[in-house]
Amino acid sequence: MGAPKKGTNDGSFLYDPCLLQGLDWTSLQGVMSPPITNTAPGEEWLCVRPLQVDDFDKGFISLLSQLTTVGKVSRMDFLRQFLAMEKSGGYYVTVIEDTRHKSIIGAATLVTEFKFIHDGGLRGRLEDVVVNNTYRGKQLGKLIVMTVTLLAKKLGCYKMSLDCKDPLIAFYKSLGYKLEPGNANSMIIRYETEPS
Amino acid sequence: MGAPKKGTNDGSFLYDPCLLQGLDWTSLQGVMSPPITNTAPGEEWLCVRPLQVDDFDKGFISLLSQLTTVGKVSRMDFLRQFLAMEKSGGYYVTVIEDTRHKSIIGAATLVTEFKFIHDGGLRGRLEDVVVNNTYRGKQLGKLIVMTVTLLAKKLGCYKMSLDCKDPLIAFYKSLGYKLEPGNANSMIIRYETEPS
Repeated sequence: MGAPKKGTNDGSFLYDPCLLQGLDWTSLQGVMSPPITNTAPGEEWLCVRPLQVDDFDKGFISLLSQLTTVGKVSRMDFLRQFLAMEKSGGYYVTVIEDTRHKSIIGAATLVTEFKFIHDGGLRGRLEDVVVNNTYRGKQLGKLIVMTVTLLAKKLGCYKMSLDCKDPLIAFYKSLGYKLEPGNANSMIIRYETEPS
Repeated sequence: MGAPKKGTNDGSFLYDPCLLQGLDWTSLQGVMSPPITNTAPGEEWLCVRPLQVDDFDKGFISLLSQLTTVGKVSRMDFLRQFLAMEKSGGYYVTVIEDTRHKSIIGAATLVTEFKFIHDGGLRGRLEDVVVNNTYRGKQLGKLIVMTVTLLAKKLGCYKMSLDCKDPLIAFYKSLGYKLEPGNANSMIIRYETEPS
């Protein structure tokens, strides 16, 4: 297993970092300006890599709290979920580290799902996208979303999907995501959970 | 591991059939008329149960072709995906069998996803819902959808989501699913795949 070009390689990865090598950014010409990629993210102190087991201490959970309700997630809770994802497979939690501060400043997750349909295919989903809002203007949102989107293609997914709020539609359209006419509805049931 | 009350118990299950016992159908009063449940599906020859390894021979893949493009899925392909799902965990493919004909006539899948957000929670997704169109008028669509929806609740999911086409919105609304205002968009990228 290879290590990413940069970054502090002091923990085990959730998935093989070699998978992030050779992603096909050619289709993004014009979308990224300047044309950064996961292996050349625009600043020498930025590193795009799989989640590592010690990223709890680099603020990964704190970062997620900028996205939604995280609740109380201890180091042990983090480790439990990390190991559950690793055992299951199909979880490609990907982060951007500011290696100057050993701080996680961006994250996005690709989750893959085995299908019987589509020739027994693989479907991808984009989940839990967040970038630290003090790092604006560096295209890091586009960078982390497209890294996992290109990874889904590399893994052989026949499609990639996401759910989003109205104000984010334009952002995802700029990256190639589409609202298919008549087929773009996301519906949910929220369950009441026991107070923890 | 227990067996379902009825049905031909001649293959191994994708998940523990005991999980389908004791689902809380009380919240569905008025929705199902007459009030059928997964353990009392209205006809003695109907059986709601987890997918079994020999369901390829009971027409499971043929049934899915009523839903979408299935392509060429051989018995070996089916088995490969079945085992991949079993190994991964989190795949609750659930079927309705007409035990008179040893035929799969309905199916729906709950896929669960580990999360770091929401207290390290579990999210559910409803996938690949299909009922043989020659069995109309028996509420089997509602039955299979609510079986996996109640299963998600039992497993502790904090929410369950689905993507659907416009004509199905009313159906899912009748079962408690909602389009959350401003947060109901499903966007996708379809990848070109190599011709098989």
